[in-house]
Amino acid sequence: MAGKTVFVTGGAGYIGSHCCVELLEAGYNVVAVDNFANSVEDDGVATALKRVEKITGKPVTFYKCDLLDRERVMKIFDQHKIDCVIHFAALKAVGESMQLPLQYYKNNLIGTINLLEAMKSTNCFDLVFSSSCCVYGDPEFLPITEEHPTGNVTNVYGRTKYFIEEMLKDLSKSDPKWNIISLRYFNPVGAHPSGLIGEDPTKEVQNVMPFIASVALGKKPHVTIFGNDYNTPDGTGVRDYIHIMDLASGHVAALKKLQTTKDLQYKVYNLGTGRASSVLDLIRTFELVSHMKVPFVMKERRHGDIVSMYADTTLASEELGWQARHDVLRMCEDFWRWQTMNPNGYKSETVATNGNGIPEKITKTPFTNGNHVNGDGVKASNGH
Amino acid sequence: MAGKTVFVTGGAGYIGSHCCVELLEAGYNVVAVDNFANSVEDDGVATALKRVEKITGKPVTFYKCDLLDRERVMKIFDQHKIDCVIHFAALKAVGESMQLPLQYYKNNLIGTINLLEAMKSTNCFDLVFSSSCCVYGDPEFLPITEEHPTGNVTNVYGRTKYFIEEMLKDLSKSDPKWNIISLRYFNPVGAHPSGLIGEDPTKEVQNVMPFIASVALGKKPHVTIFGNDYNTPDGTGVRDYIHIMDLASGHVAALKKLQTTKDLQYKVYNLGTGRASSVLDLIRTFELVSHMKVPFVMKERRHGDIVSMYADTTLASEELGWQARHDVLRMCEDFWRWQTMNPNGYKSETVATNGNGIPEKITKTPFTNGNHVNGDGVKASNGH
Repeated sequence: MAGKTVFVTGGAGYIGSHCCVELLEAGYNVVAVDNFANSVEDDGVATALKRVEKITGKPVTFYKCDLLDRERVMKIFDQHKIDCVIHFAALKAVGESMQLPLQYYKNNLIGTINLLEAMKSTNCFDLVFSSSCCVYGDPEFLPITEEHPTGNVTNVYGRTKYFIEEMLKDLSKSDPKWNIISLRYFNPVGAHPSGLIGEDPTKEVQNVMPFIASVALGKKPHVTIFGNDYNTPDGTGVRDYIHIMDLASGHVAALKKLQTTKDLQYKVYNLGTGRASSVLDLIRTFELVSHMKVPFVMKERRHGDIVSMYADTTLASEELGWQARHDVLRMCEDFWRWQTMNPNGYKSETVATNGNGIPEKITKTPFTNGNHVNGDGVKASNGH
Repeated sequence: MAGKTVFVTGGAGYIGSHCCVELLEAGYNVVAVDNFANSVEDDGVATALKRVEKITGKPVTFYKCDLLDRERVMKIFDQHKIDCVIHFAALKAVGESMQLPLQYYKNNLIGTINLLEAMKSTNCFDLVFSSSCCVYGDPEFLPITEEHPTGNVTNVYGRTKYFIEEMLKDLSKSDPKWNIISLRYFNPVGAHPSGLIGEDPTKEVQNVMPFIASVALGKKPHVTIFGNDYNTPDGTGVRDYIHIMDLASGHVAALKKLQTTKDLQYKVYNLGTGRASSVLDLIRTFELVSHMKVPFVMKERRHGDIVSMYADTTLASEELGWQARHDVLRMCEDFWRWQTMNPNGYKSETVATNGNGIPEKITKTPFTNGNHVNGDGVKASNGH
């Protein structure tokens, strides 16, 4: 597959940037676009992708481009010989999506339609689409296989993913040249082990790990846990957290599948670990790793919250030869390293720590309970 | 409601033009747009809407405009004080939608999103959306109430309708200013009793009544009926045919509902008669009315065809004070009058008959079996 050119939408985002590392290391050329809706730019340059180049020693071709700008997308496809596409770009905040549905439908659906048209017009038919376990709605059975019904989605963000999956399925039925894989992500967390790239939402922090980290750093007073009397091991909701680098390698596996199976048409794979962890598990592991206290407050269950969700990962294992390798401890370690090396995310002027992984500016007292992860604090084992 | 201005998308189409008659007669001002994707233009003027003006003696403001042209839509909203919108414009051929899904999703979804943005930016929040019984998929029970599950749709066209319904529901939840009614049409047939406007597809004839008419006129050799051993009265599939003028009056009822119930947010109503007719019923009634033979050929059932579908119309009756008044005989009479007065649809140079409703150019021998509908052939009773 070396030498093939992958067009990556949303390349400067959390998942996109980590995926670029894996793509470059697998020998692909990367042409990435981003509109910086939820990523950091420095005078039109994607800070995350500069770091990706630093990690890999390889160049990324980058364009600031909004997929709503049909002509610009088309022009980039005309300028490069694109072999395949990974489509991450989307608005993705669940709560916000309920408040701004028109913006979400517009951005996610029209952006995708423009992309598909550009692909078609340049005879590029290999696509990996960034879907979500949201498409399953409230699970009817666990673990969730790819056969689980979809469509009974509980939020607008997830509905845009479901609609796009349906569009892609219809497209692949209408013309066998299309070769499409939708990857249904469970809960991506963690960061690249270098600490150079990670999740840096430019909008209000909503995802669980950045939120836990912001509490650990004293930027937020506590984590609120809604419901502790569910029928789960510790009573709190459980999720299938997956290390971002495992997720990234899943995309490389999907791309290889597309390129070796030309009559695939349309396939769907779960990307998860198959293991369920509670919010409390995550908080406790994060405390262990960070030596910081993460206070939490228990509140009543919220109507509509999904209690328990984790993947059956058999299909991806059998057909993509892929499986997740990192555990929650490693996810927390890598996230904490990113967080401490970049206390203000990509806006930090320098990547700096005080040597033990604790950022210079933390005013809270580190929380040590004797449960050190290993001798050198949060330093991760090599590789991933 | 008199004096209010309604923006009608797809106004030159079959349903749009008939609805314009009812709107004008109810005292609304009409601003209509159409891109002539499936309607006839004469130098930028919509032939159907010229006829609507002739029928009603009232003017229609018309713009040739594609809803994909966001700026143009916005400009029209800026030029007029639009009070409410009826959104018909859509690609609608079921078979074609499976072959050209990207075109269908693009046209129907992006067109709707552009329209909603134009509405929002001009503080226009009252919308009647043209949906379809397609959203129900293969019925789980009959007659179909509005509570019947949606989403398990069997074709791309229907999926665009379902997606838009979901978008509208989300939109109305996000902002109580939105006041939206989706009308789920069953099978609209027939024509205005004047014979001046009717269904004139510019694409290959697919809908049942134009197809039957083209067989009656000798343009097609026969109607093919797929499956005559279904569990229905005569073994062929049954549908809920509704007269186009009943459908049109349903839109006026919906508009009144929106304007009298400002906190409606989002509601859905079936527009059907509640009566099931088979394809054979329709053919036989058409023969009676037209005095022409309509040969048919029976073939095997087709996989995926829906056997039986008809509406429970209680909700529209109770909440909109609306119900269908015309039977299948009347649907056939009115359609045949339109067909004979306009043998080439809107492209006919003059509206002309030989006095007994049979067009001048028919070369087939009229089929008379003694079952004349009434003394003056196909002439309809006054009014509707």
